[in-house]
Amino acid sequence: MPRTSKRSYSVFLGNVGSCSDRYCSAYAPPFSYSELFDRAASIELLNGVDLVATNRLLNSQDEIRRSIDKTGLKIVSVAVDTFTEAVWRQGSFSSIDPAIRARAVKDTRTVMDFAASLGCDLITIWPGQDGYDYPLQADYLQERTWFADGIREASAHRRDVRVSIEYKLKEPRTHCYLNSASTAALVLAEIGAANCGAVLDYGHSLLGQENPGESVAILKRHGDRLMHVHINDNFRSWDDDLIVGSVQLLELLEFVYWLRRTGYRGWYTMDQFPYREDGRDAVAESAAWLDAVEAIVDKADPAEIAQVLSRKDAIASTRLARRLLLGR
Amino acid sequence: MPRTSKRSYSVFLGNVGSCSDRYCSAYAPPFSYSELFDRAASIELLNGVDLVATNRLLNSQDEIRRSIDKTGLKIVSVAVDTFTEAVWRQGSFSSIDPAIRARAVKDTRTVMDFAASLGCDLITIWPGQDGYDYPLQADYLQERTWFADGIREASAHRRDVRVSIEYKLKEPRTHCYLNSASTAALVLAEIGAANCGAVLDYGHSLLGQENPGESVAILKRHGDRLMHVHINDNFRSWDDDLIVGSVQLLELLEFVYWLRRTGYRGWYTMDQFPYREDGRDAVAESAAWLDAVEAIVDKADPAEIAQVLSRKDAIASTRLARRLLLGR
Amino acid sequence: MPRTSKRSYSVFLGNVGSCSDRYCSAYAPPFSYSELFDRAASIELLNGVDLVATNRLLNSQDEIRRSIDKTGLKIVSVAVDTFTEAVWRQGSFSSIDPAIRARAVKDTRTVMDFAASLGCDLITIWPGQDGYDYPLQADYLQERTWFADGIREASAHRRDVRVSIEYKLKEPRTHCYLNSASTAALVLAEIGAANCGAVLDYGHSLLGQENPGESVAILKRHGDRLMHVHINDNFRSWDDDLIVGSVQLLELLEFVYWLRRTGYRGWYTMDQFPYREDGRDAVAESAAWLDAVEAIVDKADPAEIAQVLSRKDAIASTRLARRLLLGR
Amino acid sequence: MPRTSKRSYSVFLGNVGSCSDRYCSAYAPPFSYSELFDRAASIELLNGVDLVATNRLLNSQDEIRRSIDKTGLKIVSVAVDTFTEAVWRQGSFSSIDPAIRARAVKDTRTVMDFAASLGCDLITIWPGQDGYDYPLQADYLQERTWFADGIREASAHRRDVRVSIEYKLKEPRTHCYLNSASTAALVLAEIGAANCGAVLDYGHSLLGQENPGESVAILKRHGDRLMHVHINDNFRSWDDDLIVGSVQLLELLEFVYWLRRTGYRGWYTMDQFPYREDGRDAVAESAAWLDAVEAIVDKADPAEIAQVLSRKDAIASTRLARRLLLGR
Repeated sequence: MPRTSKRSYSVFLGNVGSCSDRYCSAYAPPFSYSELFDRAASIELLNGVDLVATNRLLNSQDEIRRSIDKTGLKIVSVAVDTFTEAVWRQGSFSSIDPAIRARAVKDTRTVMDFAASLGCDLITIWPGQDGYDYPLQADYLQERTWFADGIREASAHRRDVRVSIEYKLKEPRTHCYLNSASTAALVLAEIGAANCGAVLDYGHSLLGQENPGESVAILKRHGDRLMHVHINDNFRSWDDDLIVGSVQLLELLEFVYWLRRTGYRGWYTMDQFPYREDGRDAVAESAAWLDAVEAIVDKADPAEIAQVLSRKDAIASTRLARRLLLGR
Repeated sequence: MPRTSKRSYSVFLGNVGSCSDRYCSAYAPPFSYSELFDRAASIELLNGVDLVATNRLLNSQDEIRRSIDKTGLKIVSVAVDTFTEAVWRQGSFSSIDPAIRARAVKDTRTVMDFAASLGCDLITIWPGQDGYDYPLQADYLQERTWFADGIREASAHRRDVRVSIEYKLKEPRTHCYLNSASTAALVLAEIGAANCGAVLDYGHSLLGQENPGESVAILKRHGDRLMHVHINDNFRSWDDDLIVGSVQLLELLEFVYWLRRTGYRGWYTMDQFPYREDGRDAVAESAAWLDAVEAIVDKADPAEIAQVLSRKDAIASTRLARRLLLGR
Repeated sequence: MPRTSKRSYSVFLGNVGSCSDRYCSAYAPPFSYSELFDRAASIELLNGVDLVATNRLLNSQDEIRRSIDKTGLKIVSVAVDTFTEAVWRQGSFSSIDPAIRARAVKDTRTVMDFAASLGCDLITIWPGQDGYDYPLQADYLQERTWFADGIREASAHRRDVRVSIEYKLKEPRTHCYLNSASTAALVLAEIGAANCGAVLDYGHSLLGQENPGESVAILKRHGDRLMHVHINDNFRSWDDDLIVGSVQLLELLEFVYWLRRTGYRGWYTMDQFPYREDGRDAVAESAAWLDAVEAIVDKADPAEIAQVLSRKDAIASTRLARRLLLGR
Repeated sequence: MPRTSKRSYSVFLGNVGSCSDRYCSAYAPPFSYSELFDRAASIELLNGVDLVATNRLLNSQDEIRRSIDKTGLKIVSVAVDTFTEAVWRQGSFSSIDPAIRARAVKDTRTVMDFAASLGCDLITIWPGQDGYDYPLQADYLQERTWFADGIREASAHRRDVRVSIEYKLKEPRTHCYLNSASTAALVLAEIGAANCGAVLDYGHSLLGQENPGESVAILKRHGDRLMHVHINDNFRSWDDDLIVGSVQLLELLEFVYWLRRTGYRGWYTMDQFPYREDGRDAVAESAAWLDAVEAIVDKADPAEIAQVLSRKDAIASTRLARRLLLGR
């Protein structure tokens, strides 16, 4: 059952379900995996889903495979779970405990095989627990070395599956090691593996005081390894994971432009936490915003945009943005 | 020569000229007052200007009056200069030096008379130097008392001129006393004068992690004394004073809605620092953005917006915003 | 069994246990209430505990009472649970649903009685879910009115129990209504009840770009109703709830000074989320830091500090801070 | 006349003079270069000064040389002036105007020769105007290429003078290209010149949401080219350029530790904007704070610190910090 949207839009499967935070353990009742797939499939603009390979999911492979067959949704990537279990609380690949570092490598390899078995050639590593919380808490030289070494070792498992690493300034640690687009480029150069690349999460980029469109350009220039894109929105000081377009619209327009300009051919994966909304509806709303912004870029003349950018003239730039967005 | 725009748009006169910052003392050559008036008048959407009563300006009253007559621009407000001279470096109304406090009062009264002589019934006090930079630097109880007392004393000079005080979290101090909409409401209640009210600068509100539309509602509920509005844009962590609409478009739409909903009948005064642009063009661009957003609100149904707000439903809200802004 | 520390230090009971966040549902195994009390009691510098009146806790009153008797810990305050259950996801006192608003009032009254039954005359309301997440999502005028009305109504239940409301800029909402010290002062004035006051959480104050010591002064000047203090630390852009003193030491020193100067006679309640540490040890460490800073203020001469503050001289201020903290 | 302090402390010569900001063009009267040298020399802990090669300074070489001889102060670095003249307003090495790019290269070479003539082997490039202000304003791919090419070309002028580039997230642009430690490492790798390295400004690092000590480690691991250090303090969201130690004391302690641990042998150059203080006194105060923190690290056992860092234990870390700083 192939899906028909012309866009390459995916969602983290759990996003159409329910959320918790540090205060409230369940903002809504849980859904089964098959329910989540059905809910994702009901969003017309979506063609794929991204999975997080928790233990529970890895133990539900039959249900997952049946849902894939039923819905026709493509598995876009599978994320290694290095963040939901207490074992990772002081890091995964950068842990001071060699047994935990070994487990991170082993779990990554398991997920590479699992993804391949689903016809998916991309896995995601989000090392959110790899970092620290306090001044004077960590040996940055040692832990950063372990981190790069571990990902290099894991990704050597098979070269037909791409390993994308996702940067974020902070949360759940107050300081994460893989904290920016530039740091990702440095770490990827250090890893030096052809099948390793970066995930750019639009909201993480805003949180890190980056301009997401510029970060696309940085990743292009320094290694050309942008492999995956997550999309959502926030108010620039926290990873709020809000509906796409609902807050920072101008940078979103520019982001879509730079992805196209640099030849990005991958997916947009919605990565939201709709704590208080129906998850399915919130994701559908995100897809509608993103589609509307893409439609604006579809109609724009890339040569004209490039020409405006080449002038370094804020008047021309804001006038262009106004015409594109507001039609006047 | 009356101006014809249906909007009430003004600009700080200096904004159409040249800027400096702490590194570069002049990004462009200076303009005379008459040139500045002519430049402002050349922006079709503008009907007024706001002045800052520096010594230089107070010594150029003939030139100012001739330019007003020539251009037909209305003087919307006159700001007391409590921030450009070294004498104010440790505060004006809150200074520990009684002579400086007295001068702040006296200068304010002078500006009230000057404004009235120009047919303007509104003055602005922006106490940017009233605050502190370091922990343990100030006696907050004493200085805040002096601050409120001084403004009360000054505004008693004449009741036919309104005195509006402008809040800002920081800059030029790392901490300013009049730091938020809520603080402004508290201080206005303490002052207790019928001719005193608040200026809400859209960018200051964003800088203070406020939602400007909500701040309009706070000022409505707690004293109902919003007297003046400054408009510009920024990236939420500094008072960048950018072109209106160029960054935070969604909140701008909501801001215009709440101003109308709460019955604001005043002006929008552009307050920008176009360091690297031609000031006239940058202000014209701001006016065009604001006019475009106002046109969107003109066409919207206020009852429908109110109904959506009453539902507390993010899906309905973002859908409405998308339709209003992007037409889809 | 009375406790012997000369300090008035308390902790939220759950802080000495285990934490979750939006990714990891349990960073450590759970503890029973009696275990938590024993762990708190093992920290020499603590004399009290604050409780959160969840359903589970209200159903464990015998266990709680036995632990109080056993440990000699004083119940310093009881917080109404308006934040851990999905029912509150769109607000409590400000909900658009009258049944939810009524439940918030009723639950508050229940907690007032429960606290009184434990010999505690102070309850805490932290309205973290009262706010909104998106532009154009809420009717600020209406919801803020409901909010103040509800707390006024609830606190009228009995005047021998004080009702303290705790402000915070954001989280779990992207925008909370009770967002600053100044807003708290405004809302308390609107409520107008003698038994209502404010909780100042040191970390919330930093998160809101406040200087906590100055916020103490603001609450003193505008209503004089600081009833309770929470203490922790963070990096100024999120409520990290870290160990006291571990990040922002200078402001902590000033905070303790201003609490003493304004006559605060209440408690310091540790409010931390030691996700990756043993909770008991993390709280003990906080108490040790706070005690060390209090010892510094104990030895300082208040008249000398007041004299330095009156000079508005950053050189004198930083020199004083250096001598107090570093002894040179 | 050799200076005697055991520390390697310098200051930007202008810092002991007077400041301006975008509102106030002079917070204090100006000083002559010889007065500035004398003021710097009066600070016992200072051994050197850093210069900014403005046109005015380049035209005052005799006065400069006489002051160097008189005071015995070492010239630690000379900064190229790519930020105080309007010509640089849209960038220097990254300008879209080839004539401006050529001038940046030429001026850099001039400064290399000038520095060498003063017995100084280090120049500083702070490309604060190289960046952009608005979304959709710049061609990041092209401008970043020009930027790296220009610095490579300039630094080839002579290899006996080191060229250090200074990163900063923002200001005077809302977005600067050389925006983080990691970006600096990437750009230095692209430049690929042995005499090029990085300046780490402590306050820029805090502004960029970095932990300065960790940034030292990042620059060590990725190219090992930390050449120079600027020191000051701020509140993490703006480059406030405050007195060293006055706000973020814990990270300062860690910063000094990591500089020593990674073998940094260079200078600490005070880089402040004491708008409202006597510049000399403010710099002296900074030196005293830094000396006090260095004295703490002098007395600490590096092996013990390394051992604590290797444990990844926040309790041990905060206890160590408390003992080191507060002596208890």
